[in-house]
Amino acid sequence: MEHLTTVREIYRDRECFLGKEVQVGGWVRSVRDSKSFGFLVLHDGSFFETLQIVYEDKIDNFAEISRLNVGASVLVRGTLVLTPQAKQPFEIQAEEIRVEGASAPDYPLQKKRHSLEYLRTISHLRPRTNTFQAVFRVRSLTAYAIHRFFQERGFVYVHTPLITGSDCEGAGEMFQVTTLDLNDPPRTGDGAVDYSQDFFRKMTNLTVSGQLNGETFAQAFRKIYTFGPTFRAENSNTTRHAAEFWMIEPEVAFADLEDNMELAEAMLKYVIRYVLEEAPEEMNFFHTLIDRGLLERLNHVVNSEFGRVTYTEAVRLLEEHNDEFEYKVAWGCDLQTEHERCLTEKIFRRPVFVTDYPKEIKAFYMKQNPDGKTVAAMDCLVPGIGEIIGGSQREENYEKLLKRMEELGLEEKDYEFYLDLRKYGTTRHAGFGLGFERCIMYLTGMGNIRDVIPFPRTVNNCEL
Amino acid sequence: MEHLTTVREIYRDRECFLGKEVQVGGWVRSVRDSKSFGFLVLHDGSFFETLQIVYEDKIDNFAEISRLNVGASVLVRGTLVLTPQAKQPFEIQAEEIRVEGASAPDYPLQKKRHSLEYLRTISHLRPRTNTFQAVFRVRSLTAYAIHRFFQERGFVYVHTPLITGSDCEGAGEMFQVTTLDLNDPPRTGDGAVDYSQDFFRKMTNLTVSGQLNGETFAQAFRKIYTFGPTFRAENSNTTRHAAEFWMIEPEVAFADLEDNMELAEAMLKYVIRYVLEEAPEEMNFFHTLIDRGLLERLNHVVNSEFGRVTYTEAVRLLEEHNDEFEYKVAWGCDLQTEHERCLTEKIFRRPVFVTDYPKEIKAFYMKQNPDGKTVAAMDCLVPGIGEIIGGSQREENYEKLLKRMEELGLEEKDYEFYLDLRKYGTTRHAGFGLGFERCIMYLTGMGNIRDVIPFPRTVNNCEL
Repeated sequence: MEHLTTVREIYRDRECFLGKEVQVGGWVRSVRDSKSFGFLVLHDGSFFETLQIVYEDKIDNFAEISRLNVGASVLVRGTLVLTPQAKQPFEIQAEEIRVEGASAPDYPLQKKRHSLEYLRTISHLRPRTNTFQAVFRVRSLTAYAIHRFFQERGFVYVHTPLITGSDCEGAGEMFQVTTLDLNDPPRTGDGAVDYSQDFFRKMTNLTVSGQLNGETFAQAFRKIYTFGPTFRAENSNTTRHAAEFWMIEPEVAFADLEDNMELAEAMLKYVIRYVLEEAPEEMNFFHTLIDRGLLERLNHVVNSEFGRVTYTEAVRLLEEHNDEFEYKVAWGCDLQTEHERCLTEKIFRRPVFVTDYPKEIKAFYMKQNPDGKTVAAMDCLVPGIGEIIGGSQREENYEKLLKRMEELGLEEKDYEFYLDLRKYGTTRHAGFGLGFERCIMYLTGMGNIRDVIPFPRTVNNCEL
Repeated sequence: MEHLTTVREIYRDRECFLGKEVQVGGWVRSVRDSKSFGFLVLHDGSFFETLQIVYEDKIDNFAEISRLNVGASVLVRGTLVLTPQAKQPFEIQAEEIRVEGASAPDYPLQKKRHSLEYLRTISHLRPRTNTFQAVFRVRSLTAYAIHRFFQERGFVYVHTPLITGSDCEGAGEMFQVTTLDLNDPPRTGDGAVDYSQDFFRKMTNLTVSGQLNGETFAQAFRKIYTFGPTFRAENSNTTRHAAEFWMIEPEVAFADLEDNMELAEAMLKYVIRYVLEEAPEEMNFFHTLIDRGLLERLNHVVNSEFGRVTYTEAVRLLEEHNDEFEYKVAWGCDLQTEHERCLTEKIFRRPVFVTDYPKEIKAFYMKQNPDGKTVAAMDCLVPGIGEIIGGSQREENYEKLLKRMEELGLEEKDYEFYLDLRKYGTTRHAGFGLGFERCIMYLTGMGNIRDVIPFPRTVNNCEL
């Protein structure tokens, strides 16, 4: 069809369009008319701001246009003119308005503000609202910024598998994937389900992490990252948990914990800068209407060095605040969100890396420190969220890794491929995981993970 | 740890490093030594080519280095010097070589060439070989090129859900996702499995397409694309089918079939150009060792306009070749790969769009043409592969869409959200799906889909 100029192009390059005829297409946000002319506010999905259209009764379908409902789609041909007296900077004086699609009277998105809870019930329409235009544009830009960051630094993007026959971290709570008929699955002689007749001839699950697969590629390409969906069948109905979410997991050979922290810090700063530059209108909206102080906080992060503190020292600092906590802190305990937020919001007042956790509360593959008690782990905590990144240097020594696996009762045969990496040209290496949705919540100030995922999957909820 | 210069930096910017001391880290591809000096060929994963290291018996660990097995990892400090007499353009004269990790004597990747079949059995090590270095770097670059293409054009990247309660195209053959205990699932009064006790309180599957969800975002942002995994539980053990693969699905509001073809053509050309520019060494390797003629073919595609032919006309042209086909062509039949390849390789000798297929062989959502027999579908066929892209203009008319759904026995209640899009500001719109793996096969000349996926999932195969 004919070429359409976007509202973004008009806003970003207005000089180029002033006084010229343009054609735009979009959806009606509001219409008001008087006897001989009317105003139509148009949104075309390319830009956060709307475009005002003025139309006069000289156009044939003046009455039809004035009767349009919110949500209708139109094509407008007209001339862009400045409006120095008005709130908006310019408008289009319409020569022609064609109705592409009407909007039925029961259109659920009227001009008034709707609650986020209500909008969750219409996930197919909510991207048309200001809030979700902003959220999902920032989500898209953030994804791209992450790819750019890693590609510019020579990282290879790896698609690790979603369906897996193994359980990476022994994380439990996985979704099973099957083509067997649950009503009447084939059974072996002893009555158990016969997985040799399942699609993959064995029991399979949805992945909880691509890390172990990612490591195999890091030992070939040196610098790799994954960016894909991961799954948790956790029965936790909170504002921070989803059953399906996206993760970014970089992994670097010839890298230690210090390199890992530098990479994580550089990545977060890069992403924040990118979003602030590419989506100023959206970020300003979040700052104004969702989370007062957001812009100061993000600008502060970009311009400050992240703090560093060992777990042992962090526990000492937190113990001074124990009267404020629901769960008291003591060496050996896992840090709760309340502790993490106290560290980053009150004690450090900026993002902070906590390093060298007790080995008992961390995964088997983390590099064992000489003290015999801690591992070379790092969590990055940020104000407002708590943990946003978790990572570690990996144990690269074959014997030490095997011994730890035995202590934890892991089956050697399930990890042969992983042990092979320590057998054939092992290297110091390190990596981390960034929860993509947590990152979006952090960037936008949105408080519920359901509002940063296009079609969220949570306990008891799998709509559309 | 200390900064490492990459082999890529040295090759791309040699002037900058000549005569200077550098430190590199990587894996040994081969070692040979004489009495007082030796050569070590190093690959560091950053670049397709290797780097030669010369070392002399003045270094302390001369004997240790000379005994290194293929696959060992080392850190080398030395000076870059030109070697005008030799095969390679330069080498490093080592001052120091530290062994990072030895490689056990049973390392499976020796210097000889291994078959692709054998390498499939060691998917954790095969990325270290030349072929898979090339494949997976091109895969990474292609993914990035696709993101760049769409982001530069203002498309919003949408993560459509993987776990779904609905079956988009009625495509059948889906994987079920469940947390029920298959050995003893809860049952309702009549003995059927009680899905109200499953994680999402209903039966759920892995998605076969994000299109319908994508359309909801196209009606909000106008231009969107998805790029994520999709699944088919098809029992077909071929070189072109995988159970888990990635798809790109753009969708554009205010766009018709012509716009759709222009977008697809521009995207393919952009991606080919990007890969040829960014990975010349890898592409040359494919051209030389995998698929003679690859570069001519790709360059031809970049520089030619894609053909256009209606299905009806294509059938007429193909009927003249019916004696060559296993399956004879006649109007109404679905085109087989042999027909598609004949069209693109023999008749058009370039990529070709086939449009306006019989409605019976296409999905319910495609726009019905005025002839009452065909729909505004388009498939893009390319030499060597056949169909690489399938798309259509969508039926934007509420009544026509509903009528077609009724004809096909689809339940209106399962598609209420989709019908809503036609009720509230519907627009002409169109989109397509690109199978990412097919695209990589096309770009590299690799003949088996198992060799372009890091950890392929196919019938009876879900290793690592």
